Amino acid sequence: MDAINIAEKFSLFTDYFNPRIIGELNGQQLKAAKIKGEFTWHSHHEEDELFLVIKGLLKIEFRDKTIDIKEGEFIIVPKGVEHKPSAGEEVLVLLFEPATTLNTGNVDNELTKSILQRI
Amino acid sequence: MDAINIAEKFSLFTDYFNPRIIGELNGQQLKAAKIKGEFTWHSHHEEDELFLVIKGLLKIEFRDKTIDIKEGEFIIVPKGVEHKPSAGEEVLVLLFEPATTLNTGNVDNELTKSILQRI
Repeated sequence: MDAINIAEKFSLFTDYFNPRIIGELNGQQLKAAKIKGEFTWHSHHEEDELFLVIKGLLKIEFRDKTIDIKEGEFIIVPKGVEHKPSAGEEVLVLLFEPATTLNTGNVDNELTKSILQRI
Repeated sequence: MDAINIAEKFSLFTDYFNPRIIGELNGQQLKAAKIKGEFTWHSHHEEDELFLVIKGLLKIEFRDKTIDIKEGEFIIVPKGVEHKPSAGEEVLVLLFEPATTLNTGNVDNELTKSILQRI
């Protein structure tokens, strides 16, 4: 058990749309992800998903609107709600969600990461 | 569903050791707390607890050591582990833990907050 520095964790990888697990508790995981470009439309049938922006501007498209999440802001996407994250410039984001959560949810494509690295 | 600004939530209250609920997902809660002074020794029998420091320096005493958690750092205190948070100067911290978590865990004293405000 020790203090974990978030910036240090982000310094350990450079690839986009490939979350790393940086903490686990109560069946949930805290993940660090870098986002740039457009992700895929998807939803999570069983899991609500929290996005907390550490750096940059994250856009999440929903079927009826687009929401900007700025540095120091978070959003909770309820289970079942289709969403598509994207970012024009690199965004650093923390995800908080159940350990069962697959990054592409109900979709299986080239962006799917079935096994995430713990760092 | 909207973006939630963390600094704005912290601006809505001034008291210490009285966490506010600022988000809920998957049976877990995200809480904002201000800490200054010494909390009480306690543990949570069933819940791991995440502290993420937004501003200031949080100290958590354990029975065998003290850990400093600085701005941009977090720590996960496993269930059953006795701990005592404290801060010399005001600290802003996010807590992530199950909705069942009582702030003073196994202890019931003047610091216990059985009902938390949602903001």
